[in-house]
Amino acid sequence: MNNRMTLRLIGIALCLEAALMLLPLLAGFCFGERPFSFLISAAVTGAAGFLLTRIKLRTKAIYARDGFVAVALIWILMAAFGAVPFVISGDIPSYVDAFFETMSGLTTTGASILNNIEGLSKAGLFWRSFTHWIGGMGVLVFMMAVLPMSGEHSMHIMRAEVPGPVVGKLVPRARDTAKILYMIYAGLTVLETLFLLFGGMNFFDALLHAFATAGTGGFSTKNASIAAFHSPYIETVISVFLVLFGANFNLYYLILIGQAKSAFKSEELRCYLIIIAAAVMAITAGIVGIYGNLGDSLRNAFFYVMSILSTAGFCTVDYTLWPQYTQIILVVMMVIGGCAGSTGGGAKLSRIMLLVKSAFADVQRMISPRRVKRVRMDGKCVPDNVLTTVSTFFSLYILILFLCALVVSFDGVDFATSFTAALSCISNVGPGLSGVGPTENFAAFSEFPKLFMSFTMLTGRLEIYPVLILLFPKKR
Amino acid sequence: MNNRMTLRLIGIALCLEAALMLLPLLAGFCFGERPFSFLISAAVTGAAGFLLTRIKLRTKAIYARDGFVAVALIWILMAAFGAVPFVISGDIPSYVDAFFETMSGLTTTGASILNNIEGLSKAGLFWRSFTHWIGGMGVLVFMMAVLPMSGEHSMHIMRAEVPGPVVGKLVPRARDTAKILYMIYAGLTVLETLFLLFGGMNFFDALLHAFATAGTGGFSTKNASIAAFHSPYIETVISVFLVLFGANFNLYYLILIGQAKSAFKSEELRCYLIIIAAAVMAITAGIVGIYGNLGDSLRNAFFYVMSILSTAGFCTVDYTLWPQYTQIILVVMMVIGGCAGSTGGGAKLSRIMLLVKSAFADVQRMISPRRVKRVRMDGKCVPDNVLTTVSTFFSLYILILFLCALVVSFDGVDFATSFTAALSCISNVGPGLSGVGPTENFAAFSEFPKLFMSFTMLTGRLEIYPVLILLFPKKR
Repeated sequence: MNNRMTLRLIGIALCLEAALMLLPLLAGFCFGERPFSFLISAAVTGAAGFLLTRIKLRTKAIYARDGFVAVALIWILMAAFGAVPFVISGDIPSYVDAFFETMSGLTTTGASILNNIEGLSKAGLFWRSFTHWIGGMGVLVFMMAVLPMSGEHSMHIMRAEVPGPVVGKLVPRARDTAKILYMIYAGLTVLETLFLLFGGMNFFDALLHAFATAGTGGFSTKNASIAAFHSPYIETVISVFLVLFGANFNLYYLILIGQAKSAFKSEELRCYLIIIAAAVMAITAGIVGIYGNLGDSLRNAFFYVMSILSTAGFCTVDYTLWPQYTQIILVVMMVIGGCAGSTGGGAKLSRIMLLVKSAFADVQRMISPRRVKRVRMDGKCVPDNVLTTVSTFFSLYILILFLCALVVSFDGVDFATSFTAALSCISNVGPGLSGVGPTENFAAFSEFPKLFMSFTMLTGRLEIYPVLILLFPKKR
Repeated sequence: MNNRMTLRLIGIALCLEAALMLLPLLAGFCFGERPFSFLISAAVTGAAGFLLTRIKLRTKAIYARDGFVAVALIWILMAAFGAVPFVISGDIPSYVDAFFETMSGLTTTGASILNNIEGLSKAGLFWRSFTHWIGGMGVLVFMMAVLPMSGEHSMHIMRAEVPGPVVGKLVPRARDTAKILYMIYAGLTVLETLFLLFGGMNFFDALLHAFATAGTGGFSTKNASIAAFHSPYIETVISVFLVLFGANFNLYYLILIGQAKSAFKSEELRCYLIIIAAAVMAITAGIVGIYGNLGDSLRNAFFYVMSILSTAGFCTVDYTLWPQYTQIILVVMMVIGGCAGSTGGGAKLSRIMLLVKSAFADVQRMISPRRVKRVRMDGKCVPDNVLTTVSTFFSLYILILFLCALVVSFDGVDFATSFTAALSCISNVGPGLSGVGPTENFAAFSEFPKLFMSFTMLTGRLEIYPVLILLFPKKR
């Protein structure tokens, strides 16, 4: 345990958040607003952060447990401070609602409690979408990229924040890996902004939708989400970029250093593309009767397959009016989520692949106990402890899903609502079915379920263990 | 592989089924019916079985794979032949419906396609409920108990049919274990019949409800299920016996040989009783406003907690009118199911306990990688391969659940219906929510979903692996 180091890391993160709050301030000024709420919030957050960074360290070591606890606490406090400007400005008067919305933003869930998104100040809208971009690649990964930190143990931190069963370094130093990841992330965001501008969006909308796509968050600046733009081009651009942001970022690094061939050998990537193609075809077959022509049906199917599989949760048409089986496909994709090392949520595709492979290895073991078959991924043997962790992760995922559904059901909503709201939170999707469908929002829930869902989102984003370790801190 | 042995085992099982079909014949005669449908079916089944037993063996060895495949095939064929009398007698004119009903009976699911149960012949009613009793403890376990079989490899068979993560022998010889289990099973069934007779049921109803309780099946002889008897006494008797049949049968053996004290030390048993108590209290709190007094509320809560947790699925009042959170509790209990070594379905309580313990061990490993903490159950270390199998089992359980929900949704039913119908099938419960709630049935589904659900019930009853091994028979 190195509590002083944990507090110092929290301090640095809050200072960073204070600095980031100046961006919505700037955005507000550009639109002629007086967004002093962000100035006050930045001052408070920065002051709190500064005080914590003054704590004297006795040692610079970061232990495994510290990494997890620091990450969990930093995310909770960033949401807690990040909610303040919404309350001060009056954009979101209730603090619980503002906390929910900020946590939903940071965790890139995109579930909203706002009935009138367009009524928000421009500064508020900017901050809301910007939280997606901050949370998408990870706060601590960013800190590692921009700040000088002791390198030796920083992998503990990266492991706690980067999604997927195994976190690999692209380059020997974790810090350089973090830098490369953020450069790719920023590059793709700029590229999407340009594509959206080209489709007729104004700069503000284009940038904010690029933030939400990059983090696979799903907040829009419009009440009608993407449907407000009435543009098949924009829908397609967003769908394509969701394919990119839902894939493992290692892929882009390999392409950048000229190893594109080995990048496309990834089993997960192939499975990802196959799932997308299969789901689009299956859904298109079911909705072609609704839209009358193949083009519109394909576009709508592709949009929602990517919106849900990448766990962004952008909306256009109301998919709850589609055939029931297409909705179950969407629900299954909420469980799967993006690839490891992407900004997508869910259980992650590589985990599901390892689960299925483990199951077959298990069957094999039962048939002929003496012939041990190893589980392989990308040609390499997967260590047993990784397989165990993947299995227990998935079990915990399902248990937390049911627990959250139970809490949500205290509000008296029907089964489809409570179950898919919980799934949407743990998988960081946004919309669900029934009462939380694409035309609905989370405003009507009461405070306790809202808080519980906020923490479920965090549990999903940090892939369970950091939050669990925070809850059970004593050595057992 | 020893295919000849597999075929011979199937033959023996069919001969046994033919013999068992004479019981409903007898029951029919007692009520003045002429149930020749059972005579014809018994003749056909017996003839098919007899031919298979004539196959000459080259070796008596039973390999692991043979055990699994034999069990899976025997169950499928017993349902296939068991459905015949319903069709011949006209009780259930459609063969697919009859197959569904028989599989639902044998797997002790208790999901019905009958709109008018009371319209069935007495012989048909007897057979329907008797399949619960046959399937509850297992067909092959019964064969082992009554027939002379090569003892050496018979544990492979027992392992494939007796539920739970680890199958232990009570006594050194598997055959003797099977005999003891069936004696306890029969003894408790007789005891319940007496208790129900005392409550004013006629002998026919008492016996058939005892069959359905013993197998934790849930078929009733009345359209209104247990509600038809308007008797708090009968409800309570059934609830209490469901507690007994949902517990590990090893417990009763230990009590019989005078080791009651060590029996009650079982962690699973304690957890089982705690879950029952907690669920009853939580549900009572929610429904006391509906029933007005604590007594009725407690009774209704206890009845449904046991009906669902034991996965029997008997019905009285309509729980879909209860507060939503009580329904989620019931859904969670559908996943948990009974104890290992009980006649209950679901994932089994000991598996859920091992999953939770593994998760904490995992967290522990992350915090301090050098201090390895072993998972313990009843004071003993659980081997790693058991933990792995439990985790992959649960993952497969969830994957099959979603797959079945997808197939059911082809019929255009809502999410709650397709999801809980699938859960009800894989966990062998019977009722679910919405379109498959306690006042509904499975009649309206079309043929393909009905067949798929039949095999999902089988997959649940045989705990996945035998069916999976049957589907992927080639060595991989």
